[in-house]
Parts: sequence; C-alpha cells; structure tokens
Amino acid sequence: MSTNVLRTADGWWVVLPQGLDSARPGKTPNDRAVRVDTKAVTTPELLVDRDAVREAAASGEPGTPVADLVTLSPVTTPCRVVAQMVNYRSHARDSGFTGEIPPTFFRKASGSVSGPADSIVRPAHVKFLDYEVELGLVMGASLPVGTVVTEQSLPSYVAGLVITNDVSARDVQLTKTQFYESKSYPTFTPTGPYLALLEPEDFAHLLDLRLKLSVNGDLRQDRTLADMVVRPAQALTLLARFQTLDPGDLLLTGTPGGTALKAPPKPVEKLGALLPPAVKWKAFFKSQARNPRYLHEGDVITATIATADGLINLGEQRTPVIDAN
Amino acid sequence: MSTNVLRTADGWWVVLPQGLDSARPGKTPNDRAVRVDTKAVTTPELLVDRDAVREAAASGEPGTPVADLVTLSPVTTPCRVVAQMVNYRSHARDSGFTGEIPPTFFRKASGSVSGPADSIVRPAHVKFLDYEVELGLVMGASLPVGTVVTEQSLPSYVAGLVITNDVSARDVQLTKTQFYESKSYPTFTPTGPYLALLEPEDFAHLLDLRLKLSVNGDLRQDRTLADMVVRPAQALTLLARFQTLDPGDLLLTGTPGGTALKAPPKPVEKLGALLPPAVKWKAFFKSQARNPRYLHEGDVITATIATADGLINLGEQRTPVIDAN
Repeated sequence: MSTNVLRTADGWWVVLPQGLDSARPGKTPNDRAVRVDTKAVTTPELLVDRDAVREAAASGEPGTPVADLVTLSPVTTPCRVVAQMVNYRSHARDSGFTGEIPPTFFRKASGSVSGPADSIVRPAHVKFLDYEVELGLVMGASLPVGTVVTEQSLPSYVAGLVITNDVSARDVQLTKTQFYESKSYPTFTPTGPYLALLEPEDFAHLLDLRLKLSVNGDLRQDRTLADMVVRPAQALTLLARFQTLDPGDLLLTGTPGGTALKAPPKPVEKLGALLPPAVKWKAFFKSQARNPRYLHEGDVITATIATADGLINLGEQRTPVIDAN
Repeated sequence: MSTNVLRTADGWWVVLPQGLDSARPGKTPNDRAVRVDTKAVTTPELLVDRDAVREAAASGEPGTPVADLVTLSPVTTPCRVVAQMVNYRSHARDSGFTGEIPPTFFRKASGSVSGPADSIVRPAHVKFLDYEVELGLVMGASLPVGTVVTEQSLPSYVAGLVITNDVSARDVQLTKTQFYESKSYPTFTPTGPYLALLEPEDFAHLLDLRLKLSVNGDLRQDRTLADMVVRPAQALTLLARFQTLDPGDLLLTGTPGGTALKAPPKPVEKLGALLPPAVKWKAFFKSQARNPRYLHEGDVITATIATADGLINLGEQRTPVIDAN
C-alpha cells in the first residue's frame, strides 16, 4: 500500500493510513498527518530518507488534521517538468485526432508548479484558459538516455504519484503551435496535495486510477488510466531516447477528454485548412468565445485521482481561478 | 571589446587579444590562450570570477595555441536551454510562413549540448538530419518572470555569446509538431568554441554579427542579425512573461535561411492540407528523400559567428556527422 506525504512551509508530513476514507476516493476530510523528522528540504532529498517517513508513520502520534495544514506542492522546484501530448483516447477525439498519434513530449517551466490550494492566475492577455487533470509521475532514480523501462522495472524509476493540472492558455497554445509558453505561466501546474510513495506491488493498480476534475461542482473529466494510449513504462522508454531525468523530476502523463477545448467539426476544419492561419484562428476563437466551459475569475476547480478502493488516493486539489491584476 | 574564454577538461582559458585575426572573421588559427586561475567549474561560477579572467588576460604569458587544446562547450550543463522558433525573415520564407509569425519559444534538453569539435550523432531512426547555426545568448543575471528588458538594460542580463547549432531531426519534428524531442538528442546542440564575454559597449555591434554555416565547404547559411525578427532585448522580455532564467542559462535566437528543409511550394501545400496527416507526411518525406542537403555520416559542418571587423569573433565550430552504432 502506498504512503502519502505532503509538504508545508514547516517541512514534510506523512498522512496516517487510518485517515484514508476509502468509501469516497479523493475526498479525505478526516486525514491526519504527522511531521517527518528529516533534514530533507527538496523532494529528491525526501526520497532518500524513506526511513524517516516510515518512522513518522509508525510513531503512534495522533497527528494533525490535514484540513488544518496549508499544503504546498510536494514536488519542489526547480526540476524538470515534461508532459505527454494527447495521451488519452477520449482527449484525442476531443482534439480532432483521427489517425495514429505519434507519442510526443513537451516541456513546461517548473516555475509553473504551484500548491494544491493556490489560485490559478490568468494572465491579462489570455482569453481561453483551460484545465487538464493529469497523473504526475515523480522520478525516484536517474533515467539515463537509452534506458529501456519495462512494467517490471518501472518501480525502480518511479517513486510516486501526484495530481497535476496542466493548465493551458488555448489562444497562446494554438496560435504559437509550440505548447511550452501556453502551459508554463506561473501557477499553471497545480501539484498535490499528496505525493503517494508507491511500493512495487502498488504499480499493478495503476490502470485502476480514476482521474476526475470538476469546475464549480460540474464534473468535466472522469476517466481511468485504461483510456491512456502510451502507458508509463513505455512513455519513460520513449522519453529516454533523448532526455535524461533525475530523482524529483516530474512527468505529466496526459489528460482525458472533457477539456473546454473541442476541435471544430471536420467539414469546418477542412475548410479552415484552406484559410491563412490568422484568418483561421480568428474564426476559431470567435466560435470559442461562445463556449462557456473556459475558466473565469471566481471558478473553483477540484481534482482527484484515486483507485475505487481508495488504496491509492492522491487527495483532493482545490484551486480557485483569479485574474492577474 | 569582448573577451573570449574557452573550456577544456583542465578548466577555463582566456584567449589572448593579439590572437584575433580580424582579416578573417571566424577563422582564428593563430589564437593563443592562457589558463584562468579560478576555482570555477560551471559557467555561472566563471561568470562571477571575471577578475580571474582579466588577470589571466593581462598576465603577459605567451599562452598555448588554441589549436592544440581540446575545447569543450563553454556552456556547462545542466542549464536551461530555450530556443526561438522561426526568428529570421529568410528562414521564415524557407519554412513557408507568409503572414505574421507569433514570437514562439521551445525547450531543448541541455543534455543535447556538446563540444565545438564533437561529432553530431544521428540516431538510427532519424532520416532527415538538418543544421541551424544560431547565436546563443548566455545569461549573466537572473531574469525573474515579469522582467522588461530594454536595449539599455540588455547588458545587465546577457553575459556573453556563443555559436550554437540547433541540430534538428526533421522527420521527428514535423510529424510530432512539438520541437522538443527532435532537437534534444545528445549532441544536437554543439556549442562554442568561444564564450565571448561582452562589455556594455559591445552590444551596439550585435546586428553586425554574421552567421555562416558550411557543410563540406559548401556555404549553406550566411546572414547578419539584421535579418532577425525578434531581437534579444525583446526576446528576453517575451520569454520573461512565463519563464525565469538564471546565470549560465542559454537562449538560442533562431537560424537564418539555408537549412536543408524547405517548405513545399504553396499549391502542393494547400493540396496537402486536405490529406490525412499520415498521407501528407509520407508524400512530403518521399520528396525530401531526393533532397541532397540533409546531413549524412562523414559530413563536416563548420560554423562561424563574427563581426566583419573581428571585434566580436566567436571562433569556428567544426563538427563531423556520424551514425549511431
């Protein structure tokens, strides 16, 4: 069974197992946490002090209600943040992909990582702000270029899991074609609350993880990892064709369907392909302006990732949206 | 006048000013260098030990011929490597862009940085290997998000300049749409030989810098920075909308026209837009297979960046191409 840790301004905490509310995956109102006695400041430092985590979990202390703690991202920065493009079949359909999708990675600035209760700040020039709940893999070992990761060796490379939201400025993303800026503004990667440190046997349950995201209580995304195209072991193998990773680095594994953005119907898109790009995008964004699903100031996003039995449960992320002033 | 430094396995060296061969910018066969007495290992460490560089330059020692030294990249890694997409008018024409190009950034893995005489290794799955000579800006100060950089304040942020080659696997780049993987394989960012540390007055000569790249002696790229679209001060301002930089980080500022890749003629491209992506790319790469300008094992690339008067002269990069075994 996985062990959940969280981070506050005071340091690291372990969530007591008895706090798991398995009847309501993702909702963990009764969770209690105990301080970890460690000198670790960064995530990779914590990952090599698993004994301290175990000791805190076994301390017998009653712990502090998690609800009373101000949780920070359990992934510290700077670190590498890499993300997979279009990696759920349902999102591929939303995005208008029909044929085969080549497995593709892009980078996010790690300065975009924010806490699981921090506000998402919409930059003034961004009109179409979108959400993407994603399972984040936190590396526990170095991944040199050329590494082949199998289902069997995956536990040697991945230390844990986090909820991430790959917040996206769609108007920036689609007009610039490269995703980097549109997904890298500060607060565009809410992360946490829990870092679930996995035991090797936990990896057998990865495909049972269900990702859910709601905006103001309206359920927008709701899929299990069974809908995923390129699964973690294969993704790391493909990434290691060109990219080294180190402990504490973060891989976002793609989002399921249900984002605000939906590709226009096919006949419209084919017609659009004949227009100059500027005209095409102007028409597309004019149509998107009538789409009420994009994020606005005052919206509150909740996101959970858990197995149905609650054995892996990454907690609940709750992030309001505000405008930059 | 700028001061050129270089790096070997033994440490840092300063190139003696009398070594400049101003008659032949880029060609510096007579350059001599003196060891810098510094504890600096990384580029940011060297940047804060400018006194040691000055002392070595003024030492009066005869120095060692640069031709006898095995030079490494003067930009040490890991560091952030950010690049500008389509940033010369001549390259925009080559790439088939007609209208306005939104200023766009992408990331390269810093594991792709290699030395100025190292081989460029073509991965076995890459068929269309291309070159892109680019001026690299090496940061000398932190660039927090929100920074506005002006022509006047540019010298406070940029410590120096290097030759870079943004080597690109075109078949990977175009089919995946995100540039990250195609430009991030190990050895895909040859850097150096010289890091030119600039004085504030040197920045007035930036637009006089001429980039040249030849393959087996055949001149392929040859433009000055006057052809650049988004110049360094504006580029850093736009990048700082979302990305923090630190000393030693590297910004590649785009390549001029003359790459092997050229967009297909417009009527063909419009027709191609109606085909499914897989069919379109198959047809495109079939046509590219007849293009003799892509890189092959045994090719030797030479690249120089210098002003006509040689006052800024980043040396000559000379990189053979080999196949991965």
